[in-house]
Amino acid sequence: MSVAIIGGTGDEGFGLALRLARAGEDVVIGSRAEERGQAAAEKAADLLGLGSGAGTRGGIEGTSNEKAAAGSELVFVTVPFAGQAEIYRSIKDALRPDAVVCDTTTPLATAVGRPAWQVLTPWEGSAAEQAKAILSKNVRLVSGFHTISGHALQSLDRDLEGDVLLCGAEPEAKAAVGALVGRIPNLRWVDAGPLSMARVIERLTAGLVSVNRAYGITTA
Amino acid sequence: MSVAIIGGTGDEGFGLALRLARAGEDVVIGSRAEERGQAAAEKAADLLGLGSGAGTRGGIEGTSNEKAAAGSELVFVTVPFAGQAEIYRSIKDALRPDAVVCDTTTPLATAVGRPAWQVLTPWEGSAAEQAKAILSKNVRLVSGFHTISGHALQSLDRDLEGDVLLCGAEPEAKAAVGALVGRIPNLRWVDAGPLSMARVIERLTAGLVSVNRAYGITTA
Repeated sequence: MSVAIIGGTGDEGFGLALRLARAGEDVVIGSRAEERGQAAAEKAADLLGLGSGAGTRGGIEGTSNEKAAAGSELVFVTVPFAGQAEIYRSIKDALRPDAVVCDTTTPLATAVGRPAWQVLTPWEGSAAEQAKAILSKNVRLVSGFHTISGHALQSLDRDLEGDVLLCGAEPEAKAAVGALVGRIPNLRWVDAGPLSMARVIERLTAGLVSVNRAYGITTA
Repeated sequence: MSVAIIGGTGDEGFGLALRLARAGEDVVIGSRAEERGQAAAEKAADLLGLGSGAGTRGGIEGTSNEKAAAGSELVFVTVPFAGQAEIYRSIKDALRPDAVVCDTTTPLATAVGRPAWQVLTPWEGSAAEQAKAILSKNVRLVSGFHTISGHALQSLDRDLEGDVLLCGAEPEAKAAVGALVGRIPNLRWVDAGPLSMARVIERLTAGLVSVNRAYGITTA
């Protein structure tokens, strides 16, 4: 079964697609436009040298967000906060009833033209809880990956390091996402508690941006 | 001296332009595109019967947001929250050093595709304080008009009623905006305290939307 990455043409999603495909997973990149999803998949296959006979890597394909969501039991949603609600509405009916969805959204103030080291507070408390409010009740939602930058994920010549903090109501869903985390070298997953802890964890992204800014680095 | 309405092609701004021009003020409608500002001014003049010799009404013109801001000592900013920061950056250098700016923005969750009866909490606490963070320090900012709907403002056959709650640091600036409020029949202005009270007052818009929704009305 493949892993779907909704919004897989963005920095975080594309980086995640690269790392998971390199780890041997079959990955489907979703985009609003099927062609853009396909183009991203071709670029990713090229970067990973897929088809060159390396043999230890997974496949990577591209399609629309809806088709990607329909075809996977584990769906990452990696989109900017401004478009998050619209994307969830667009995939809601396509998602399998038993899907595990991992949301990586941070409600950065960039959604309304303000700096990336500031956040908005969504009505529900966090972007993940906003997603939960839109999705069908049976979908198992996990929030995570807020401290792993798209830049780092895409820098394939460097190992990642650190902990991936996962929040959510269902232990099995967190473990399913955690198993994928464990396939990426040097990454470890940590259970950070219920979905409402996303109110804390999501904001770490803005904190890291602020540290990067203070020190003129990209690797906080 | 004319009153400028930035974003005067939107519901709230256009309605305010109509009411102020009918009260005898000279109003300049600003829009991102000069032509759209002009078209809105022509529509407003038409609705008000200006030029027909009524004689008791002010003039109404349209132009770009920047030109409107540059030409007025009293500037209303009536734009959706999603574009508010960008609009303030675009007029910041055009504003007169001693301008009084009245912000009518509510940080409705519609900015990120969520319902109009929900709000986002901006980094600074309110949309008005976000505007303050962008503007030069000498600009005197007032927040107000959140309980007067664009629909009501545009319904010229009906009198408005109610209180216009104004927040801001400078009493003279509130009084200047209040004097304009007083020119609109049946409206009264109330000093609601410092600018940070916008954290309370702005949210009343979402509350009114929710009441309208519960009762199937538009006049809460």
